[in-house]
Amino acid sequence: MDHERELRVAERAARVAGAEIARAWTRDRSNETSVEYKGAVDLVTATDKLCEDLVLSALREAFPEDDVVGEETHAASGAKELSKTTSVRCWYVDPLDGTTNFVHGYPFSCVSVGLCEGGEPTVGVVFNPISDEMFTAVRGRGAFLNGKKISCSAVRTLGKALIGTEIGVHRDGKTVDAIMGRVRALVEKSRSVRCSGSCAMNMCGVAMGRLDGFFEIGFGGPWDCVAGTIIVREAGGVVFDPSGDAFDIYARRVLCANGNIGDEFVKALSEVPDGPGEPQRPEI
Amino acid sequence: MDHERELRVAERAARVAGAEIARAWTRDRSNETSVEYKGAVDLVTATDKLCEDLVLSALREAFPEDDVVGEETHAASGAKELSKTTSVRCWYVDPLDGTTNFVHGYPFSCVSVGLCEGGEPTVGVVFNPISDEMFTAVRGRGAFLNGKKISCSAVRTLGKALIGTEIGVHRDGKTVDAIMGRVRALVEKSRSVRCSGSCAMNMCGVAMGRLDGFFEIGFGGPWDCVAGTIIVREAGGVVFDPSGDAFDIYARRVLCANGNIGDEFVKALSEVPDGPGEPQRPEI
Repeated sequence: MDHERELRVAERAARVAGAEIARAWTRDRSNETSVEYKGAVDLVTATDKLCEDLVLSALREAFPEDDVVGEETHAASGAKELSKTTSVRCWYVDPLDGTTNFVHGYPFSCVSVGLCEGGEPTVGVVFNPISDEMFTAVRGRGAFLNGKKISCSAVRTLGKALIGTEIGVHRDGKTVDAIMGRVRALVEKSRSVRCSGSCAMNMCGVAMGRLDGFFEIGFGGPWDCVAGTIIVREAGGVVFDPSGDAFDIYARRVLCANGNIGDEFVKALSEVPDGPGEPQRPEI
Repeated sequence: MDHERELRVAERAARVAGAEIARAWTRDRSNETSVEYKGAVDLVTATDKLCEDLVLSALREAFPEDDVVGEETHAASGAKELSKTTSVRCWYVDPLDGTTNFVHGYPFSCVSVGLCEGGEPTVGVVFNPISDEMFTAVRGRGAFLNGKKISCSAVRTLGKALIGTEIGVHRDGKTVDAIMGRVRALVEKSRSVRCSGSCAMNMCGVAMGRLDGFFEIGFGGPWDCVAGTIIVREAGGVVFDPSGDAFDIYARRVLCANGNIGDEFVKALSEVPDGPGEPQRPEI
């Protein structure tokens, strides 16, 4: 079967890394060093690095010809911008998406492993070891949660839709204006808004229908969204740039939704200008 | 042991009702009638009513002298304002907190059962059958999650705190101004903000430390907050009116937090005036 081995290797790697997240998760957070000071930072760093090493080495061993980009490795390289790879096959790995949740124990943290071929997402694995949810997809073969086929919701209008987004990072005033303006547009036009703190889990939430749509501008990079993109698309959903333009995995901007409400969702956001400190709409 | 029987009866009733929620939860949401139209409304109504009947009859049978107030029964009565009971003992029951989550499958829905004696919360049970989390507390005896003692987080400043709130109901412009103003204050002053869609689950999140604080103005009534209040307090946290005044279970306004950040949290919200359509700060 097409991409069977890629899926199996990615899934196994995500489970091994997820077990490390789960092990660190159960620590006692009721003492201050665990959540507030150096102890928390050290634990995030150690868990992030360990999980990335586990996933990257599994991918490199199985697919020595492929490029592999991990969030931690990229951050450690000091490069401000990620160079867009022109390689035929490139894996993008976020070993611990939702680090603030991990620090505090809020149950949306996951491992995200996605493969791009010729720039297009083709294989995606997102594993949340706390809720024990394994989301998988291969292009053309459907999307699955713990082995069971999933589909986006059937909601037909934004007014009936539950929308995920994120609002929680300190930024300059004009950027906060833009963020709050978009949230306000959704409060006024959707049924309700949820903020869970993990881009990959939000995208999987759209794929399995507990959210009807999700958007975020300014997340970390392609490691957060490549796996989620193929999972949403294989579940019958759409993935765009929030402007409605074609999705760019490098733009740090994403909007996804079930196939019914995508256009209405883009329109609701279109009246709010982006903030000056936010990643801009990519040139076409 | 003090209140042993009250706790046992409330816990058993919450489990029985929770099993009904879990049964309805697993339905297929990928067809429109399930989430968007009459089908969803009917299912919420039926599940809400069935769960309330189960809990109320269990409480009435075990404690025939006590008053019992259920959200559904109150709503069906058509009374706009809940009369403040002067009875010695009164149970407040929300058979299905987080109904929007229930409709969409977002995993924060629960049964909330709380006892007030002389107006003060003394026993609380909150059960989320999807995450299988049973939160319990009796005054003076600590708070528990699935039988294990829990404590609020040890975070010492708002800037390091993960804060829960809700922003997702359509309202008049000035009320939305107030809601967005408070969220903005928290985006600027806390570490991050989460919106999960269930008042009772947010309060329990503070009690077990995955949130450091939570506030909401304009939720349904005492059935949403009585159980959560005793659970937070027994976990070492504080429960106030969001103005910093004494908490009033009837006011439909709550702020709770670990014992360290309560004052700073109140201060951060104090600069934003309440909206004209919101429940007002109670008179003292």
